[in-house]
Amino acid sequence: MYDSVTKFIDSSLDESIETLKSLCRIPSVAAKNEGLDDAAMMVEEMMKKAGLETEIHPTTGASVVTGWLDVGAKRTLLFYDHYDVQPAEPFDLWHSPPFEPELRDGRLYGRGVADNKGNTALRLWTLRAFRETGTDLPVNIKFVVEGEEEIGSVHLPEYTEKNTDFITADGGIWEFGGAGIHGKQEAWLGLKGIFFVELGVERLSRDVHSSNACILPSAASRLIWALNSLKDEASQVLIEGFYDGIKPLTKTEIEAIKKIDMREEKFKKVYGIEEYLNGLTNDKLKEAYYGSPTCNICGLTSGYQGKGSMTVLPAKASCKIDFRLVEGMHPDDIHKKLRKHLDEHGFTDVKITYFEGYPAAKTPIDHPFVKVIERANQRIFGDLVIHPTSPGSGPLYLFNKYVPMVSIGCGDYESKAHSPNESIVIENFRKSMHRIVAVIDEMSKW
Amino acid sequence: MYDSVTKFIDSSLDESIETLKSLCRIPSVAAKNEGLDDAAMMVEEMMKKAGLETEIHPTTGASVVTGWLDVGAKRTLLFYDHYDVQPAEPFDLWHSPPFEPELRDGRLYGRGVADNKGNTALRLWTLRAFRETGTDLPVNIKFVVEGEEEIGSVHLPEYTEKNTDFITADGGIWEFGGAGIHGKQEAWLGLKGIFFVELGVERLSRDVHSSNACILPSAASRLIWALNSLKDEASQVLIEGFYDGIKPLTKTEIEAIKKIDMREEKFKKVYGIEEYLNGLTNDKLKEAYYGSPTCNICGLTSGYQGKGSMTVLPAKASCKIDFRLVEGMHPDDIHKKLRKHLDEHGFTDVKITYFEGYPAAKTPIDHPFVKVIERANQRIFGDLVIHPTSPGSGPLYLFNKYVPMVSIGCGDYESKAHSPNESIVIENFRKSMHRIVAVIDEMSKW
Repeated sequence: MYDSVTKFIDSSLDESIETLKSLCRIPSVAAKNEGLDDAAMMVEEMMKKAGLETEIHPTTGASVVTGWLDVGAKRTLLFYDHYDVQPAEPFDLWHSPPFEPELRDGRLYGRGVADNKGNTALRLWTLRAFRETGTDLPVNIKFVVEGEEEIGSVHLPEYTEKNTDFITADGGIWEFGGAGIHGKQEAWLGLKGIFFVELGVERLSRDVHSSNACILPSAASRLIWALNSLKDEASQVLIEGFYDGIKPLTKTEIEAIKKIDMREEKFKKVYGIEEYLNGLTNDKLKEAYYGSPTCNICGLTSGYQGKGSMTVLPAKASCKIDFRLVEGMHPDDIHKKLRKHLDEHGFTDVKITYFEGYPAAKTPIDHPFVKVIERANQRIFGDLVIHPTSPGSGPLYLFNKYVPMVSIGCGDYESKAHSPNESIVIENFRKSMHRIVAVIDEMSKW
Repeated sequence: MYDSVTKFIDSSLDESIETLKSLCRIPSVAAKNEGLDDAAMMVEEMMKKAGLETEIHPTTGASVVTGWLDVGAKRTLLFYDHYDVQPAEPFDLWHSPPFEPELRDGRLYGRGVADNKGNTALRLWTLRAFRETGTDLPVNIKFVVEGEEEIGSVHLPEYTEKNTDFITADGGIWEFGGAGIHGKQEAWLGLKGIFFVELGVERLSRDVHSSNACILPSAASRLIWALNSLKDEASQVLIEGFYDGIKPLTKTEIEAIKKIDMREEKFKKVYGIEEYLNGLTNDKLKEAYYGSPTCNICGLTSGYQGKGSMTVLPAKASCKIDFRLVEGMHPDDIHKKLRKHLDEHGFTDVKITYFEGYPAAKTPIDHPFVKVIERANQRIFGDLVIHPTSPGSGPLYLFNKYVPMVSIGCGDYESKAHSPNESIVIENFRKSMHRIVAVIDEMSKW
């Protein structure tokens, strides 16, 4: 089936890699608002070459690029990707320039090759292979490619809320994924939500000599006490109602995760720990990984942080916190509960600054589209490890009501997304194109 | 009495200021180990010009410069000063270069003019006035001038422990002091001790994506819980035995501080507070100021501290703490109790790094030497406000067993020691020399 398409993919591999390299040469860093328009235009160009109709949708932030091909088929397959990348700092840790992709020992190195320009390029190249070989597509195709995924998809709702018809499809492929530490391909059926805030305390108009600590209030101590009230030493969140309404993992999900090998011992070495949080092991560890919300300190700052001693009573203290949310939780609700908690515990002086927030979303593990992905993967890579959700976050909730989505991709355990020396294995890039062909084929038979 | 001496002081004022300016042009910053030898040599030269015998005592750090003149009198007066200064950063906030002293509107601006080169210079110039006018000194004189006061006098014990005979005297004048916010001269009879540590926690071998907070331990949370265990919301220190053995303020001291006007309302505005710690006012505020130990967070650091959001689970977290100690407490004892407290509360993973520590010391408020200072001050400045102790710290304990010491000086409320635009009022510099003459006179009558 589709032999001419896969043959084209193999014979044009160098060309598809060159396209990816060109896309990666555009330093489209959303955090710096750089190169976004150039990347959006190149993605649109790639869509056109793949035979798609396109449209660029402005938002108050970066544009959303859409592409589609309606062949009048029964099923519609949607792709969600993004043309922005993480900042490449620290530059000096890269072995080759981050925006000059370089092939070494079967891997392509560069910012964005894994997250997520590689997937964007291979998915569009697969469609181009259909077109170049004159092969009829057996499913309708839709692409939504945004430019602010790495900064919380802040303006994506402006597009999705007005285009619910477009994002409605029978199945969708989310932006990331690849081979796990065990070498097997992994699929992620959901993403946790997030609620990111900064807690700040200011108690004095300026820093004061610390000898005055006997008579003046301490912003740092106020922050410590407030943070202590949020989470106990067993990492249970103490905000009233925090766990209310949480949808627990389903029996099917619990059964599914039992089969997953977390490589507990291996990761203990990677992280340099003797045991996981609260001594979690086996099934309990997995349930926490897939099913628990968090309240995590991302950063703490106050006063003197240089070498040696300096005796100061700092005027201010602050803390960045991310709460990972599971299904049944909503950031607005947690925001209200956090404020209420602080007020009721006497911390009216602790100010909350909101940065980003959205709820979790998941595709049911027994959805027929998940089977489509599983069968397609089996044909190219073999067994697929299915995770009910990623412990990470993403704006899946914007799509989830309209299309069941599964995240698969060309990355692997060594890909270092968000870090220096981001890379992919070229063979995974090639086979991931074959897998898209297989998905299209399996979808047409569903 | 001593009219020729005071006349010489007045007529040579420009010359004494020039000497001070020369001393201040040497950037003797102990924290940077710069200019210390040059400053020590200049101080020795100033001593020689004042007619003192001198000796430079090497330590494993900066040298200690001593000077003396034994006239065979009944009483001996000792001075403790230091030739090092605080770093001058941030330079851009200075209105004139910190190491190019400048006279403006009756004030001399420059790093060290108040703390403590001004006092060093005026004390030595006063003795020079005796010599230049051929006036016999009625008391024996000793000077101990060190070069590491601003970094905790780390090597001064190497000198003092071997030279207890030299530092034995009937009375001593400590390095700092001046006019308070009320315009009256202040004398400080003691200094609190200090115990400065960093508490550090490291729980992972590297920073990790914060989605893993559901299964990995958090160094920042461990630090929060440990810090929370140290001090309750009423700022009571919870370390077992922390307050044991504390020598409370004496009745005489309590009576004395009742007379002190803390300018409560004025300082509320300065610090931008509505109330003092725990709503302290009046006598309770004073008792805390003079008689309470502290446990103060000087700095907190962990993870991402930049703008916006970054979702990271930091590998490490740390906190700098200074404990101000009152009489009856010892840093070694508090160190042991802190370790025991952390261990007993399960925080064996919290590492203590020791920076500096020494105990408190005080001269009794009813000591005859305090009366000498009071009478001398009355002759030149008028009423003296006597503080049983400063809330700040200094190595007074090294001297206190051998000599009762009182801290007076040429600074004032606007002097900004340790800050940009440090300055003194020239008229205070001149009158402080007259006061030293009066101290010498009063001491000879004791």
